[in-house]
Amino acid sequence: MDTNTFQTIDSIFNPTSVAVVGASRTPGKAGSAFLKGLIAARFKGDLFPVNPEGGEVMGLPAYRCLGDIPRPVDNVIVAIPRAALPPVLEDCATKGVRMVQLFTAGFSELSGEDGLAQEKQLAARARSCGYRLLGPNCIGVSRPALSLPLGPEGILARPGHVGFVSQSGSLSLRTAQVGITRGIGFSKIVSFGNGADLDSLDFLEYMGMDPDTTVIGAYLEGVKDGPRFVRILKDICRTKPVVVWKGGATEAGARTAASHTGSLAGSMAVWRAALKQSAAMAADTLEEAGDLLLGLQTLPPVSGKRVTIISGLADGGGGESVAASDICTSLGMEAPPFAPATVKALTGLVGSVGSILHNPLDLSQAYGRPERIRQALELASGDPNIDVVIFEAVLDFLYAWLSDETIEALFSMLIELSPKLGKPVIAILPPGINEMPRLELEKRLLAAGVPSYPSLERAVKTLARLHRWNRQRAETEIESWDRGGP
Amino acid sequence: MDTNTFQTIDSIFNPTSVAVVGASRTPGKAGSAFLKGLIAARFKGDLFPVNPEGGEVMGLPAYRCLGDIPRPVDNVIVAIPRAALPPVLEDCATKGVRMVQLFTAGFSELSGEDGLAQEKQLAARARSCGYRLLGPNCIGVSRPALSLPLGPEGILARPGHVGFVSQSGSLSLRTAQVGITRGIGFSKIVSFGNGADLDSLDFLEYMGMDPDTTVIGAYLEGVKDGPRFVRILKDICRTKPVVVWKGGATEAGARTAASHTGSLAGSMAVWRAALKQSAAMAADTLEEAGDLLLGLQTLPPVSGKRVTIISGLADGGGGESVAASDICTSLGMEAPPFAPATVKALTGLVGSVGSILHNPLDLSQAYGRPERIRQALELASGDPNIDVVIFEAVLDFLYAWLSDETIEALFSMLIELSPKLGKPVIAILPPGINEMPRLELEKRLLAAGVPSYPSLERAVKTLARLHRWNRQRAETEIESWDRGGP
Repeated sequence: MDTNTFQTIDSIFNPTSVAVVGASRTPGKAGSAFLKGLIAARFKGDLFPVNPEGGEVMGLPAYRCLGDIPRPVDNVIVAIPRAALPPVLEDCATKGVRMVQLFTAGFSELSGEDGLAQEKQLAARARSCGYRLLGPNCIGVSRPALSLPLGPEGILARPGHVGFVSQSGSLSLRTAQVGITRGIGFSKIVSFGNGADLDSLDFLEYMGMDPDTTVIGAYLEGVKDGPRFVRILKDICRTKPVVVWKGGATEAGARTAASHTGSLAGSMAVWRAALKQSAAMAADTLEEAGDLLLGLQTLPPVSGKRVTIISGLADGGGGESVAASDICTSLGMEAPPFAPATVKALTGLVGSVGSILHNPLDLSQAYGRPERIRQALELASGDPNIDVVIFEAVLDFLYAWLSDETIEALFSMLIELSPKLGKPVIAILPPGINEMPRLELEKRLLAAGVPSYPSLERAVKTLARLHRWNRQRAETEIESWDRGGP
Repeated sequence: MDTNTFQTIDSIFNPTSVAVVGASRTPGKAGSAFLKGLIAARFKGDLFPVNPEGGEVMGLPAYRCLGDIPRPVDNVIVAIPRAALPPVLEDCATKGVRMVQLFTAGFSELSGEDGLAQEKQLAARARSCGYRLLGPNCIGVSRPALSLPLGPEGILARPGHVGFVSQSGSLSLRTAQVGITRGIGFSKIVSFGNGADLDSLDFLEYMGMDPDTTVIGAYLEGVKDGPRFVRILKDICRTKPVVVWKGGATEAGARTAASHTGSLAGSMAVWRAALKQSAAMAADTLEEAGDLLLGLQTLPPVSGKRVTIISGLADGGGGESVAASDICTSLGMEAPPFAPATVKALTGLVGSVGSILHNPLDLSQAYGRPERIRQALELASGDPNIDVVIFEAVLDFLYAWLSDETIEALFSMLIELSPKLGKPVIAILPPGINEMPRLELEKRLLAAGVPSYPSLERAVKTLARLHRWNRQRAETEIESWDRGGP
């Protein structure tokens, strides 16, 4: 991607002003929803509703057409019926806007060849008029750091350094929401819909070059240029981790994809080969994509597969330990026995009746005492056989066994200790009947560099993939990767 | 199982009085925790703390020994160090109690052969003295309908008709908690620890005969008598569905299991054969076990694999539909095209621009209007090609697009309509940033016979297994299964 194109796309993510064509006083309309979202998010730029009736919309002066706006307009969001497009696009050209984001749908996703021809015309027209086109059938761009929210839903993701490129509007929103609940921060999010002009490959290439983006995620139903896709992916993977969530992986999915964004989903074999050649990480579901992005964003490189799993912070832990061994082994990580010196030290610390001093480690006999648990964590994570530390805190057990003061002391200890262990640390916080304190703990742990997963399976699966990625990087001489700030 | 044994075990689940040996004024002790749990749950029977110091414990008169209790004692919970056991067991014999539940640990799980020999002595002694033994190293029995809670945590599961048998205390608690959050109700829960006297097979056989139990779940790390296990499982599966969650499935897990409950985990091949011969359903994780139990408890038999998936109740839905096709196909269910008449009627109802009128069905263009969504649901579920109905409600989208009144109207419609569709109905309610209304909707849907799952994958995986079970039943001429009350 040449510097010029990079700068153009970069400016799309950094508008100083946004006009919304189709914003009206009627609630429930997409244009009104876009404007409402921008106002609610407190977008750090100028906002111009465009409505043929003029007057005021949501407290802002509405302009009858783009030409009436007295200041420059960077991005234009268009949410009007297809038939009403031509004069608006004419105005966009005259006004000299940078980007037109078409929420308007009804092109190749609906009428196949005919729609595709119309899309090509739209793109050609954009090129000749000097603006770039996003969509049609898309919810557009979001830049959390500028409070530029995503879509008519106005979802403002948490700011951060994950760039997300999506062929689906709703799945980009779902990803942003998973980010809000799990603590994944985004540099930029774009949903490009049918991608008549700018499409997945442009945005992937941009994210690869963008210094503000250190981790890349993509939801793709199909790409138009297979060889270019492989080339770009290989290139990006040299410097940044990429998670690709592929929609339309089966025949039934491909059929649905065609009518969703008019994509030719392509054979899954080609996709797998592309991912393999490039060291990109495949995700099959939203949960998997979120798990990987959270881990990549938060954890230092996972350089080994030997895990210690610590459970039973209050009572419980035995059954969890048994299950934990199975999970590690079956998902490609290892929970090796501790070194004899570690076992000896642990026995001295927590005794042995009713608790399991192997790895996985059941700390029930520490009875939730923060100081003992700290020492046990230090011993287990300091073991030379261990690369990664996982602890499981079942909040329902903690609340059943311990006083609120002890629980707080335990949490403070975990938060303070984790960054000092010198190894990647992951928390397992299973959902239960104490959701509010659980989510609060999740937030505090994240701030200390510890990502939380709802189940051990999902954590271990993520770790195994991150470990494999780390090995692939070494094998393919991928350049060193700078994860950037938290 | 003879009637006598059945009645004995049944009485263990229905005590009219419980004594807790080891309950004291010192908080944090297991005996105190058991008593506290029983009081907090308002156990519907007599409670007797036993403590050598006498006096009062938590407002109840404490007895120096069992013999001092002036009334009959059914169940005795013993939570004292191993060395202090002999005189207490002597007292149990003299008092003529029905069951002794040993929380006390430190037997075969700790010292292998020696511990096993001691356990055999405990069991022989129980038999000769006329009481039954639970444990050692166990948290015992729970009967939610009698407010008899589980373990020292005092977890009171939701009453219902699922019987759960667990070799692990903490995983029985976790299962009860998953039941509380997801709406699974339990007839009886038992965690038998090392199972010196009564063990997994006794309780499985009991649950099979128990008229109050219509669905059975089990967490097992190993069984002592393989052929008897297969025989019992085959026998139970003739009348009730059984979900077996196997711990210690890998070598590492088996190693951990040995030190957890002293179990010989046995080769996984033997387990798989046992499950296959019996039509029992295998679960690999707590989540899978919960998903299956919830479905079995709530849904009518899944007699076909053709699913309709309806998304986009407010905005969104396109990407979800693409992903949904893939998920169905890859997990062994089908999302077949609708009959032409259905497609025609749907087009008349919601138009076609930007929405996907295939199956999976994207209803974005109904703009959250409850009446249109009702009609679309009726059309889709009434299609002769469809056996099961799944709808996805992304609450974060609903709250972004619709007024609170419309959302409530939509929920009321879904709750009222679902039982009338005449087919199994499942809701997908992904977690997000509106957790409280989501959990509330989950509860209301459950009361209408609609189980909720957090992701489509988990719902479809569950449905596929239930459908397979239904087919196995037909093939092996399993007797008709009465799911009982909700």
